[in-house]
Amino acid sequence: MEQAAEVVEVTAKGWAAMEPTTILSPYAYTLRDVGSEDVLLKVICCGICHSDIHFTKNDIGLTTYPLVPGHEVVGEVVKVGFNVSKFNVGDLVGIGFLCGSCQECYLCKSDREQYCDNRIFTCLGKYPDGKPAHGGFSSAMVLDHRLLARIPKGMKAEQAAPLLCAGVTAYSALINLGLNKPGLRGGILGLGGIGHMGVIIAKAMGHHVTVLSSSDKKKQEALDDLGADVFIVTSDTTQMLESANSLDYILDTLPVVHSLDPHLNLLKADGKLIMLGVINTPLQFLTVPLFTKRISIVGSFMGSTKEMEELLNFFQEKGLASKLEMVKMNELNTAFERLQKNDVRYRFVVDVAGSNPDS
Amino acid sequence: MEQAAEVVEVTAKGWAAMEPTTILSPYAYTLRDVGSEDVLLKVICCGICHSDIHFTKNDIGLTTYPLVPGHEVVGEVVKVGFNVSKFNVGDLVGIGFLCGSCQECYLCKSDREQYCDNRIFTCLGKYPDGKPAHGGFSSAMVLDHRLLARIPKGMKAEQAAPLLCAGVTAYSALINLGLNKPGLRGGILGLGGIGHMGVIIAKAMGHHVTVLSSSDKKKQEALDDLGADVFIVTSDTTQMLESANSLDYILDTLPVVHSLDPHLNLLKADGKLIMLGVINTPLQFLTVPLFTKRISIVGSFMGSTKEMEELLNFFQEKGLASKLEMVKMNELNTAFERLQKNDVRYRFVVDVAGSNPDS
Repeated sequence: MEQAAEVVEVTAKGWAAMEPTTILSPYAYTLRDVGSEDVLLKVICCGICHSDIHFTKNDIGLTTYPLVPGHEVVGEVVKVGFNVSKFNVGDLVGIGFLCGSCQECYLCKSDREQYCDNRIFTCLGKYPDGKPAHGGFSSAMVLDHRLLARIPKGMKAEQAAPLLCAGVTAYSALINLGLNKPGLRGGILGLGGIGHMGVIIAKAMGHHVTVLSSSDKKKQEALDDLGADVFIVTSDTTQMLESANSLDYILDTLPVVHSLDPHLNLLKADGKLIMLGVINTPLQFLTVPLFTKRISIVGSFMGSTKEMEELLNFFQEKGLASKLEMVKMNELNTAFERLQKNDVRYRFVVDVAGSNPDS
Repeated sequence: MEQAAEVVEVTAKGWAAMEPTTILSPYAYTLRDVGSEDVLLKVICCGICHSDIHFTKNDIGLTTYPLVPGHEVVGEVVKVGFNVSKFNVGDLVGIGFLCGSCQECYLCKSDREQYCDNRIFTCLGKYPDGKPAHGGFSSAMVLDHRLLARIPKGMKAEQAAPLLCAGVTAYSALINLGLNKPGLRGGILGLGGIGHMGVIIAKAMGHHVTVLSSSDKKKQEALDDLGADVFIVTSDTTQMLESANSLDYILDTLPVVHSLDPHLNLLKADGKLIMLGVINTPLQFLTVPLFTKRISIVGSFMGSTKEMEELLNFFQEKGLASKLEMVKMNELNTAFERLQKNDVRYRFVVDVAGSNPDS
């Protein structure tokens, strides 16, 4: 027997951008109804991703205002829909940038729902009822349980948060390309949120990791704190040439236009240049290294729910942790400012449940 | 016991470019000695590849003159070196664009010798003794037997020839990317030597094949002669948009600068744009479809000896044949002229053994 969705209006208290700017302010709104496949979530914490800044400024043209950002959300289930058997009230769960997919196409049925034609993006999307899919800088959310990942017992909520977008983006790319094998030599281009996760995950997979960066500012922390094996400043032409044909893959996390050829030169035969950053301007490459070394330039986008759960368990089993800085909701604007100046090691996480919802 | 190479000077009669031009003329030269791993080959026939024109004009800067082109060579073994047990005098064998590799590196040991750092290219390379690796528009060649493919019994020499470069280039790309599965939807961009082979091979693998061409001149032959399923003129924006997200792969055989974005748009999630043409100018692409659809832009170069033998057997078993036009050695210059005007369906093969070697 199909049961009609229970109609109880829930008001969420979030922080929203009201126009194209990076300034957020308190904003209350009504959540959509808890449908048969949904859960109502009390948000515990939420990571701040660089994309959230793009969204508030409408850099990629998909924003509707008011916009509540935040798409690395960990929360506690407080109500479950009629068809939800996977989760119970009290469970700790997480969601990333994907909060809706058709669940019926060949992509959804093969754990590739992040590529579904009818996907709904957290922060940017709209639900079928017309309500915006507001993000996790908010006291509560209603979410399709089929896209929720279970947080392993004993894992801290704030440690889970950055795995749900930055972490799974790096993890999914490596897994999907068959690169989760010990002994590989990987490069991480750019040491922001995804790059930082990339180093931790690649090292835990048993890879030899080279961080490629535009300056040596992060050299010590890359080598000492994150455990990278080699640090190369990409403007050092000598070192770049000496490292030719040495890497199996590069996770290219740069979100700005850059030259691909010096990086293609670093790759071995069958190497992969994995594009993870959002870049709106065309990039250029020379085809010769592509075919003389059978190199791939390949994109990868988020990860599936299955991969989120795999990664959460991988972190739990290996005892991994990422470097975080906790902030309160009313510190969001300062955090956004600092993130734009790259002044964070390496991820801000907003302590949503521990913030005063009204200031 | 290692036996010294037998030193018997053999003179070959070939056709060579003497300077950067497409004009070839008769040219006699002494072959290198038959080493312990080598065979002496009487050339039976040799395909003409568009790259041969690039080589004679030194378009890619690797040519030494005199240059004897031809790198789709079928010949009969007339002498074998001391260590050669795979082949006997009288065997029909073939070689493509690779006539030397170290045989010791991880690439050579994993049937990827075409990506070996010490590879020697037919026509363009030099052997360790300093002698040029002249190609197959010649009466005879001395070749390392470890790079020779056995021609299956009953296969015509001229049918084998185009498989050794054009054919195996398409085949290797599909095999290596795991695309040899029935039911896939493939695109073939450009219907020259490699494209023609690509259609035949993809159809024989059970794919639905769309030919993408800049004009409709080859429409009927693509559909009727080669058995393609769909023909799209790439300037037909309506049809290109209607075909969005429909293909699993595209074999991009265009040897000139072109826009990648309309072709990326044709690919499904996890689709592959496979670059097979030699292009010296940088290409551009937008990263957004790459990561929203997890698309790869991947190069592929020739094929291994193992793949050449697989492909020869695949053609033999499936009863496949390619469309050829036979020419004599003294018709080479006319054939080069016509090939530059794209006036051949689809591959010229030079009847070397049936030509008068002195005119």
